[in-house]
Order: sequence, then structure tokens, then C-alpha cells
Amino acid sequence: MAGLFNSALLVLMLGTAVACADAGSDEPATSLDAWRTPDADNLVLMQLDSGIVVIELAPQMAPQNVANIRTLVKEGYFDGLAIIRSHDNYVVQWGDPGAGSKDAKSTGSAATTVAAEFYREREGLDITLVDSTDAYAIEVGFTAGFPVAMDEDRAWLAHCYGMVGVSRGMAPDSGNGSSLYVVTGHAPRHLDKNITLVGRVLSGIEVLSVLPRGTGTLGFYESEQQLTPIRRVQMGGDSDAATGLQVMRTDSQPFLEYVNDRRHRKNEWFIDPTGKIELCNLHPPVRTADL
Amino acid sequence: MAGLFNSALLVLMLGTAVACADAGSDEPATSLDAWRTPDADNLVLMQLDSGIVVIELAPQMAPQNVANIRTLVKEGYFDGLAIIRSHDNYVVQWGDPGAGSKDAKSTGSAATTVAAEFYREREGLDITLVDSTDAYAIEVGFTAGFPVAMDEDRAWLAHCYGMVGVSRGMAPDSGNGSSLYVVTGHAPRHLDKNITLVGRVLSGIEVLSVLPRGTGTLGFYESEQQLTPIRRVQMGGDSDAATGLQVMRTDSQPFLEYVNDRRHRKNEWFIDPTGKIELCNLHPPVRTADL
Repeated sequence: MAGLFNSALLVLMLGTAVACADAGSDEPATSLDAWRTPDADNLVLMQLDSGIVVIELAPQMAPQNVANIRTLVKEGYFDGLAIIRSHDNYVVQWGDPGAGSKDAKSTGSAATTVAAEFYREREGLDITLVDSTDAYAIEVGFTAGFPVAMDEDRAWLAHCYGMVGVSRGMAPDSGNGSSLYVVTGHAPRHLDKNITLVGRVLSGIEVLSVLPRGTGTLGFYESEQQLTPIRRVQMGGDSDAATGLQVMRTDSQPFLEYVNDRRHRKNEWFIDPTGKIELCNLHPPVRTADL
Repeated sequence: MAGLFNSALLVLMLGTAVACADAGSDEPATSLDAWRTPDADNLVLMQLDSGIVVIELAPQMAPQNVANIRTLVKEGYFDGLAIIRSHDNYVVQWGDPGAGSKDAKSTGSAATTVAAEFYREREGLDITLVDSTDAYAIEVGFTAGFPVAMDEDRAWLAHCYGMVGVSRGMAPDSGNGSSLYVVTGHAPRHLDKNITLVGRVLSGIEVLSVLPRGTGTLGFYESEQQLTPIRRVQMGGDSDAATGLQVMRTDSQPFLEYVNDRRHRKNEWFIDPTGKIELCNLHPPVRTADL
């Protein structure tokens, strides 16, 4: 058993890991202004018994949906609700298990439907382009820390691992943020421009990604016993839990170096570094600053 | 609570799911010869307390590594070993926790190193091409049920979700199949042509993908208590557990229809079906035949 924890076994590892959204890993060289502290008004903290998930919202991409989510969170809508779905290699979804029934929880002063914000005009966005051949878009890059895909005129958030969206029914405006999902598998990019993405998990995604897969249709849980309760959801300004969380600026030189490193893999483990990169294999690094 | 299980809530779902490798889902129209029963000599069944994982090996792509894995399995090498790593959005890895120490388990008559089989010549493979713009290769498709990427002369298995590979150290031939990994996150395609892939999980991947993430370097577990024991690993011919498992032939008309369906998404939930598809968003359907 001792061998597991000595260097001999680590040689049997699988090479350099992809960057993950956890604090402290895979940090490229930094400069003083390469890291930003997210606006507390854009941070949502979801507390389960097993840990805290921190989400950064993207109001520049989905202002109306983000505003409605802020209202729901501030009024305590999510407190006591549950994770209702875990679909392997796809999404984890949460909200009101009683939605649609007489037991449905009131959404308070939040809107019951919100306009679809599947994409926006590209003009006016500060975008760091990534040189990549993308299966689903003509150009890709990052804006303010979020992966975006583009055509000539429009930009939209891309369904990469860890991205958070607004569940909806058949009508484009039938979502209101009272049920949200996070991508926990290979990027389902066919959902791009078909549903509103609103943010990205900065930390704690493993709290969600390890949940037992639902055995019902589309990975929904089939009984109350299978649900994971949500203890509390707060905005960053109303909690200390996000203190010190910083995200690498995607318009910084260190981020370009990070992209370059992911593309060219200088680590000698690589026999044939590809020189290529796909959008969803890039994850703007997150760290916890020393306070 | 009742609402979770009625149709009202299902309208709040996230549209049509991607096809998954579980039996019985997302089956396109079939013809009599569209389904094949995998060769029992190519099936590996790994039994954990929480369920059974079934892997189909790809001897046409990695004959020497597959042969060595068969030897290891038949001699009971994996019985009593463990899952040693779970790295979020990347891989789950298993093998001997004592590897590299004096407690290391003997690999019996299996070879201790096996030649790298990162790719092979393209000629001689029956490949169903998929029309896709790929970030990492000039062409992509499927051969005998496995995702492949190609350049002019070579073909290699692609690191899509559920693909299984041979862990290695710094030397290209330092792996021998005694430690294996499966992709459990967004396809780490930068590993293509850098490590030998040997197969694909046909069923039971959720047994592995939900395992707690390791807190050590690269997602390795840090203590014996965190390990998940492997009860038994058998070849398909030596077990009844894989009875009835069938895979859609990737050289069949129904598979082309499946790809077309994934590309064009006729389901009316989709406002803007993309018309595009990426290799790793395709998963050759698996079912359990009525016996």
C-alpha cells in the first residue's frame, strides 16, 4: 500500500493534468494585474451538506436572466430546494422538486418568465480570441472570464464543462432561473444558442459532479430519498465564503501564456504535443488569494 | 414534492439528452444487422461493490497492449486492486496501490513493458467518416465502434468520454496495462497520439464517474481509506454479466441516421439546431438484447 503515496507510483500517472477550476493549480506566471476579484454581486454561493459551489454570473451576456437570479437568491428562493437531476456526461440540475404542482414554492417578486438571452451582438464585447478550429462556430475566445463562440455578428456563451444555464421548457422564454443546470460532461455545444447560459462554476464543481446519477428519464431522480438538499444559496456580498477567490483575467498576458502552455505542452511527458487547442479544454485559472 | 415526478416538471427539463452509453436509450430505427454482439474475448468486466463496468477492447488499434491486458485479466491480476485516482473533468484510474513498492503485486506472465501503440497506419481500417470540423485532426470517424481521428497516413483512437487507456510513465513503452484510466470529463484530446488507448466503456461508466475526487496531486487518493476496491475483473467469456450486450454497428445505416439525428436535432425543443457535430458528442448506442 505504501507505494501509492511515493514518487514511484506517480511516475505511472497520466501526464500533466488539464487545468482545473480549483484554487492554486496550474498557475502560469502572474503579473500584478493578472488576477481580478469577481464582483460580489456576480457571485452565487450554493451550500450543500457536502460543500459550497461558487458560481460567477455573466451579466454582460444575459442581463435579464442574471437580474432575475439575483432576485431569487436574495429572497431565499433556493434555500431548502434540491438537486433534482444528475445525467451522466451531461448536466446536474437543481430547483424546486415540487415545481408545477400545488406544492410549488413561490418565486416571490421574481419574474415567472424572462426573455431568452441565447446570444447577444458581438460588438461592444472585449473578446480575447483563441486560435482554434471549432466544430460549432467560426470563432471562439473568452470575454470577462467566460468562453464565447461567435459568428460574424453574434457572440454566445459556450456550453463548456462548468458552465451554468437556465433550464427552460418548449418556449424560448419559459425559463426564469428558478431551475438551473451545470455542464458536468463533454461540452454539449449543440445547446449553444438554444438556451440561456448565465455563468460559470469557479469552485466546488466536484460537489455536484460526483452526485449519484438519476435513474429516471434524462437523469432526473425518481424519489424524494434520492434528492440532495440545498441548504442555502446566497449572493457573494452576503457571505464570507467566497472571500479571497480570484480569477485570472482573460484579457491578460498571463492568460495568453496559459493558452499557449495548454496548446504546446512543453512538459517532456508529451511525445507529440499537438500545438492545437479546443475552447472547452481551456479553463481560466481560479485561485484563493493570500489575505 | 409530488411535482418532481409528473409531466409538469418534465417540461422544465433541458431538452433532448445526448445519447448515452446505457442500454436502451436513444435508439434510432434499426435493421436486422445493425447491432453486433461484441466478441467475448474483447470484453473486460470490472466488478466494484457499486456495480459492474463493461469495457470493449480494440485489438485492431492496439493489439499488443490488448493482448497484455487479456493476460493480466485472465491471471486475476486486477482482483483485489483498487481505483487509485479520480480527477474531476479528466480521468478515473485504477491499478495496484502498491505499485513501485516492495508490496507491488506480481504481473505474472504479462509483459512489464509493452510497445507504444499511440496510432497505426490508416490503411486497412474500415472507417465511417463523420463530417466535422475537428480541433485536433484533419478527419474523424468511427472504426468498429470506436472514435478515431486521422491525418493523411495515420489513425488513432480519440480521447472521448468513456475511452480507456494504458497509463504510462515518461518512456513511451512504460505502460503495460496494469494501470488503466477512463476519460470522465471533456475530451482531453491533447493526449491523443501521446498514450495508448485500448477500448471504450460500454456500460457502467457511472460506477466510476461518481467516485469522490482524489484530493492529492492530479486527483490521486491520499490514503488507503479513500480507495475503492476492485472485487474482480474477468474477460467476457468467463462471465455471464455481459450477456445480451449489443453495440450498434458504426458501419450501418442506422448509425448514419443516429449521427444525422445528433447533428440536426429535429426535436422541436431546439430553436436553432446547429447542423454541426463534434466527434466526442457521438456515442455508438449500446443496448441489452432481449434473450
